[in-house]
Amino acid sequence: MNHFALNDIVTLALMEDVGLGDLTSRYTIPENLVGSARVRARAPVVLSGLLAAEETMRQMDSRIVFTPLAADGDHLIPGSEIAHLQGSAASILSAERVALNFLMHLSGVATLTAKFVTAAANSGIAVVDTRKTTPGLRFLEKAAVRHGGGRNHRFALYDGILIKDNHIAAAGSIAKAVSRARFAAPHTLKIEVEVDTLDQLKEALTAGADLVLLDNMRPDLLRQAVWVTENFYAPMPRLTLLEASGGINLDSIGSIAKTGVDLISVGAITHSAPSVDLGLDWD
Amino acid sequence: MNHFALNDIVTLALMEDVGLGDLTSRYTIPENLVGSARVRARAPVVLSGLLAAEETMRQMDSRIVFTPLAADGDHLIPGSEIAHLQGSAASILSAERVALNFLMHLSGVATLTAKFVTAAANSGIAVVDTRKTTPGLRFLEKAAVRHGGGRNHRFALYDGILIKDNHIAAAGSIAKAVSRARFAAPHTLKIEVEVDTLDQLKEALTAGADLVLLDNMRPDLLRQAVWVTENFYAPMPRLTLLEASGGINLDSIGSIAKTGVDLISVGAITHSAPSVDLGLDWD
Amino acid sequence: MNHFALNDIVTLALMEDVGLGDLTSRYTIPENLVGSARVRARAPVVLSGLLAAEETMRQMDSRIVFTPLAADGDHLIPGSEIAHLQGSAASILSAERVALNFLMHLSGVATLTAKFVTAAANSGIAVVDTRKTTPGLRFLEKAAVRHGGGRNHRFALYDGILIKDNHIAAAGSIAKAVSRARFAAPHTLKIEVEVDTLDQLKEALTAGADLVLLDNMRPDLLRQAVWVTENFYAPMPRLTLLEASGGINLDSIGSIAKTGVDLISVGAITHSAPSVDLGLDWD
Amino acid sequence: MNHFALNDIVTLALMEDVGLGDLTSRYTIPENLVGSARVRARAPVVLSGLLAAEETMRQMDSRIVFTPLAADGDHLIPGSEIAHLQGSAASILSAERVALNFLMHLSGVATLTAKFVTAAANSGIAVVDTRKTTPGLRFLEKAAVRHGGGRNHRFALYDGILIKDNHIAAAGSIAKAVSRARFAAPHTLKIEVEVDTLDQLKEALTAGADLVLLDNMRPDLLRQAVWVTENFYAPMPRLTLLEASGGINLDSIGSIAKTGVDLISVGAITHSAPSVDLGLDWD
Amino acid sequence: MNHFALNDIVTLALMEDVGLGDLTSRYTIPENLVGSARVRARAPVVLSGLLAAEETMRQMDSRIVFTPLAADGDHLIPGSEIAHLQGSAASILSAERVALNFLMHLSGVATLTAKFVTAAANSGIAVVDTRKTTPGLRFLEKAAVRHGGGRNHRFALYDGILIKDNHIAAAGSIAKAVSRARFAAPHTLKIEVEVDTLDQLKEALTAGADLVLLDNMRPDLLRQAVWVTENFYAPMPRLTLLEASGGINLDSIGSIAKTGVDLISVGAITHSAPSVDLGLDWD
Amino acid sequence: MNHFALNDIVTLALMEDVGLGDLTSRYTIPENLVGSARVRARAPVVLSGLLAAEETMRQMDSRIVFTPLAADGDHLIPGSEIAHLQGSAASILSAERVALNFLMHLSGVATLTAKFVTAAANSGIAVVDTRKTTPGLRFLEKAAVRHGGGRNHRFALYDGILIKDNHIAAAGSIAKAVSRARFAAPHTLKIEVEVDTLDQLKEALTAGADLVLLDNMRPDLLRQAVWVTENFYAPMPRLTLLEASGGINLDSIGSIAKTGVDLISVGAITHSAPSVDLGLDWD
Repeated sequence: MNHFALNDIVTLALMEDVGLGDLTSRYTIPENLVGSARVRARAPVVLSGLLAAEETMRQMDSRIVFTPLAADGDHLIPGSEIAHLQGSAASILSAERVALNFLMHLSGVATLTAKFVTAAANSGIAVVDTRKTTPGLRFLEKAAVRHGGGRNHRFALYDGILIKDNHIAAAGSIAKAVSRARFAAPHTLKIEVEVDTLDQLKEALTAGADLVLLDNMRPDLLRQAVWVTENFYAPMPRLTLLEASGGINLDSIGSIAKTGVDLISVGAITHSAPSVDLGLDWD
Repeated sequence: MNHFALNDIVTLALMEDVGLGDLTSRYTIPENLVGSARVRARAPVVLSGLLAAEETMRQMDSRIVFTPLAADGDHLIPGSEIAHLQGSAASILSAERVALNFLMHLSGVATLTAKFVTAAANSGIAVVDTRKTTPGLRFLEKAAVRHGGGRNHRFALYDGILIKDNHIAAAGSIAKAVSRARFAAPHTLKIEVEVDTLDQLKEALTAGADLVLLDNMRPDLLRQAVWVTENFYAPMPRLTLLEASGGINLDSIGSIAKTGVDLISVGAITHSAPSVDLGLDWD
Repeated sequence: MNHFALNDIVTLALMEDVGLGDLTSRYTIPENLVGSARVRARAPVVLSGLLAAEETMRQMDSRIVFTPLAADGDHLIPGSEIAHLQGSAASILSAERVALNFLMHLSGVATLTAKFVTAAANSGIAVVDTRKTTPGLRFLEKAAVRHGGGRNHRFALYDGILIKDNHIAAAGSIAKAVSRARFAAPHTLKIEVEVDTLDQLKEALTAGADLVLLDNMRPDLLRQAVWVTENFYAPMPRLTLLEASGGINLDSIGSIAKTGVDLISVGAITHSAPSVDLGLDWD
Repeated sequence: MNHFALNDIVTLALMEDVGLGDLTSRYTIPENLVGSARVRARAPVVLSGLLAAEETMRQMDSRIVFTPLAADGDHLIPGSEIAHLQGSAASILSAERVALNFLMHLSGVATLTAKFVTAAANSGIAVVDTRKTTPGLRFLEKAAVRHGGGRNHRFALYDGILIKDNHIAAAGSIAKAVSRARFAAPHTLKIEVEVDTLDQLKEALTAGADLVLLDNMRPDLLRQAVWVTENFYAPMPRLTLLEASGGINLDSIGSIAKTGVDLISVGAITHSAPSVDLGLDWD
Repeated sequence: MNHFALNDIVTLALMEDVGLGDLTSRYTIPENLVGSARVRARAPVVLSGLLAAEETMRQMDSRIVFTPLAADGDHLIPGSEIAHLQGSAASILSAERVALNFLMHLSGVATLTAKFVTAAANSGIAVVDTRKTTPGLRFLEKAAVRHGGGRNHRFALYDGILIKDNHIAAAGSIAKAVSRARFAAPHTLKIEVEVDTLDQLKEALTAGADLVLLDNMRPDLLRQAVWVTENFYAPMPRLTLLEASGGINLDSIGSIAKTGVDLISVGAITHSAPSVDLGLDWD
Repeated sequence: MNHFALNDIVTLALMEDVGLGDLTSRYTIPENLVGSARVRARAPVVLSGLLAAEETMRQMDSRIVFTPLAADGDHLIPGSEIAHLQGSAASILSAERVALNFLMHLSGVATLTAKFVTAAANSGIAVVDTRKTTPGLRFLEKAAVRHGGGRNHRFALYDGILIKDNHIAAAGSIAKAVSRARFAAPHTLKIEVEVDTLDQLKEALTAGADLVLLDNMRPDLLRQAVWVTENFYAPMPRLTLLEASGGINLDSIGSIAKTGVDLISVGAITHSAPSVDLGLDWD
């Protein structure tokens, strides 16, 4: 993660919470009081957000020494030490909430992602994220997905082609939509088509889609889709990747993972991950 | 909510998702194609985020006509219409995800808040938020809490005084910390003290705290705290407000609401609210 | 004062004055010429603005060594040394005017505040500022008021409740306005009501206002207001603070301070403080 | 004045004062209440800041109708109407303070400038400003100086050449400093030299300075400086403009204006102008 | 092109050129003078930049009416009308240079791109751009390439995978580098490998590269590369696209286009396009 | 060049190219791999842009050690070393393109400027730039012109007065336009008038123009213009500087330099300078 993309959201969060100053600390803590503290997990957690926490402390007071005691992606048990902080007590207190807010939210995303990855229980299948992220945090949440063992789908509308029903309707057919995109868009991007039925899947394969998103299909239909695709390419190995998507949860992902699709995209890992419990304890 | 504070986060979210452009729409949708669509609830939802959704559409394309069909704070059943959109099909498609991300997250906060308010089942008690918010979204999440029937605690470190254990340790005693803050901080702010025990509560009352946060106390201890406070003031009515806080969930809030405290603060309503399901359907 | 809130206004001031570069220094001063200089008071001054001056030098050239020789809030006689600078002569010359503009303006605010505090001649009374500040400088001017011995009123519209005639008219009565604000606003904020007459004062007391602003009242009326308030609470000590406000100057503050009010707010300390004379002398 | 340069400082001022919202108005004023109000002078005033006030209202709420009833530069008597506002009562109330802060400060600058211009009592002489302006407001204060009948000196370090003692020392002599600047700086800029003595003045004239700043000279010395300069050019008319500068006040400017110099620069008109009294009255 | 991404660069350009105001127009043009003018080509030009020119006028003065008389991508002869402007004469004059700077530079890119496309003289081959763009203008220059008939390569480092010699060296081999990227990067991106030799090409094909960049190869070597690739896939049609790159100019592109590669990338179309001559004539 | 003006354009360029991260390096280069590299000229080049390149590396990764091996303004032969870089291999690779884009473009401007200076072949004449610069890069391109041996004209509309035909038409005559500008604009700026004919030149001289821009005149007409101007001042030396402008290229500048004008302004040096070839080689 490049630090200069991180700076702005950290500054925004600090301005939001500290802004004009931490009145309580200003009026009760001597300026020259120093202290040290540790961030610890208070629940099982897959860690994410260390860089944001470190940058938060750095922006608050560049003299705070922040020492990571774990790494993003680590699976931690309750009580595990995450980072050690040393410096001005007032500065650490003032930045504590923002740093924890980053860590608790992003580790929440990583932890939920890891649960989905485990539930998929199939080492070959990829759990990928969606564009259903928290406004302003996509960059960090997509990293958290990777820390949780998931993989990233396109980041945004500008780095991927995903042709949906409205695009198909406007272009006239799947074939026309794919052909226009193939001709005009950067040749470095694969072209994905979202389909609801097996007939649409066949159209997408015929149109040469690199990826097909199978929307809201039940496992038996997904299995048929895999079979249709393999048949389309047989006797060659199939070239088109298949992605299952739509309302997939921890209960359903296991059976979907067994259908033979290549990827499962899950909105919930970014839009509905509960915060995990972390705390800062003074030494 | 003042629109100019809203502009920046909407711009950030649009740059994040649309940025260089929606490649798929650019290459498949004719520029002059117009259409209309409706945002609908797909689950029971307490609505929040209408202004953010409207501003999203306005920034994407000022010619889109956005007509709200419900109001923030409304309790909606599945299928309820939330807003009507009319304008360039490509523009609406390009902004759809960002607008929905705002609405789904903020309505998630409002909906969870409403559940806590209902669970408190006590019309006199206030469910209030904390500073455990998503970085960058505090302003919008605090509004969502109000839409859900909750009330706002201090917004940040600069508009409230909350003296915690570290401040007390640094100042020497609760009495000293309160006295310093009373003397130096703006006289327009009440002074709150966080306590873990009844002894600390008595100290805080003696020090003249306007508010006391009772941290992680079980219902029976909370009841004693209320009794201690009333005794302190008797025969006058008590002046100090009592706030219960710490790990309160939908199961425990009911019994806490009956202890006689004035406010219950709940971090989960902002840090762990799952997204609610909304969708955009083309007419 | 937290440095990251300071950065932006310093950058703005430097861009405004230096922007594309100091042409005179660029073409007449050798790049490698180093020098040292001292900022000195040229008049009696209560100092404010050291952090802004230091940040100005840091942003211009991080290799300049800025050593404060006095502290914000110090009462200095003419000739007193304020800071020592060492580094690139061209850099110091280019940043000199901006640094002095901050110091001269903010020390002007602190110095005038100190005069009002002295004129109040009553150790128990607080001289507080208003929202009549210079656009863009509120944060720094409010700190300067503290350096001058004054205290801060609410910072802005978002961290305090001050109910004025228009709010009362819109709500229907003082009682209704106070009650609505009490119910809806953060419970951490006191509620202040501005009144013009003793009748309004009684209404405000009855409505439970925490603070009352007595607008443009002459000393005898202020004395009656104090008497009315004490009577309202008798035999209890009064809980409502009284603030005198409106056109108060160095001549009138002394008699107002003797009326028994708790606070005197003075717009002039921020909106009409003349600059104080400081200069930079090369060693 | 170009509006887009105005936008940022108005946004900064509104964020500073309104930011998260006007809590008092939010909780006491019905959203749909409309009203109209007038800004009036409450003292004699030379007006400046209308565009900033208008932009403040526009940014707060674009539906507010702002109608100027006077023009920047007008000399107004107490009670004169300055502008009429119509629109949402809550919006006008929320933006009132910021709009008045701009108008009161900038009209203060214009009013003090006009006093200096009158005191100079010499239609041919120009009263000009300096770089001793309030950080962040140079653009607006320089316009206010023009509204008060003054004229502008260089805006900043990048649009003028003013060679002072340190530049001369570093370059070796006035002649060398002028020659280097003449050779390297944009040919569109005049070259000004600051001098303390008549000997230095002669050096500057010999070096071909287009302008000479006569620093802290008393009237009799200024008269000699004029005589020296005319002699230097005789029998040709003199080409070099002479600027008196340094601690000039309303008492001293009259005698300085009679010395024959061309320009008088006065720092006080921007750094020490007291605010003028304006108010907003509801219809 | 989405307007909100355009806003910032236009604002930057206007601040740079107009900033504090157009002094000449301010002091010589009456404020209420209106006029109309036309932008015309003064040389053969492929047009690009209309949106930037229109936004420039809009930001300067929203009352200027800007009417395009041609479209981006049009091939115009000298004298062709490009746009009509009507509004404040001072506003149009102040924004003229910035608007023309955008149009002249971007049309220069489009015009040079069109020359390369023509020189390629092969309707099936794509002329694509590189990341060798002018800092700050990538978005606009990439659009200009499309207007000139070229196609876009990846926009930046974050929306494409291009494995070069350093990546190969660090990973250990082409196979390892491709495999790592395939496993970890978004599955929506194709993987491109840059090769210098036919041996490397074979490695890349074996590793499953979707695209291969043939760096600085002469036409005969390119022809062999095409042959190698076809052989690799025979009897299937080849799946890997081949891109010729490196110092290609108008003289050499014709022979390269005949080698059978799919794409030719040319840095010169963005980094060395001379401005084309356009002018604004008043009616 | 002051670094804080440089920061923003470097940040913009890095966000544009690196933004969300360099995917290829992230997935193929070990985080702890360090390396060193050299930037070298691959063609004859007059260097410009070192500060921008250094700042690019610093913003990407402050631990990269950037050592300049040449200075801006140096005339380098192919193979010359320009800078040495040491640090994280991934960081250097990620920032390489942006740093080179700055160096190649700005050195292109300096190199072309130097060709014009050489072609003018007259040590007394100044080759100056225009406002025909690349949007967003004026500051850096104007420095590059100085590095190439050229001189700077006014930077923008706010730091110079250049009266053109539209201003003259609006004011009524050259005399009126000059007189208005002389009276109102800062006295530190020279007044330049653009003329097409010798009659207009005489008007401008009579009006007291400090500078005259002779627009699109052929050498013989320029010679007459010089003669007319000298005659106007005879027997005094002429005070008004003459600037030739309009479509001047490397072929025509030699004969124009001999006409006796003082300055030649050339738009091409900023708007049509081809990039020069530089490269980064790993040690």
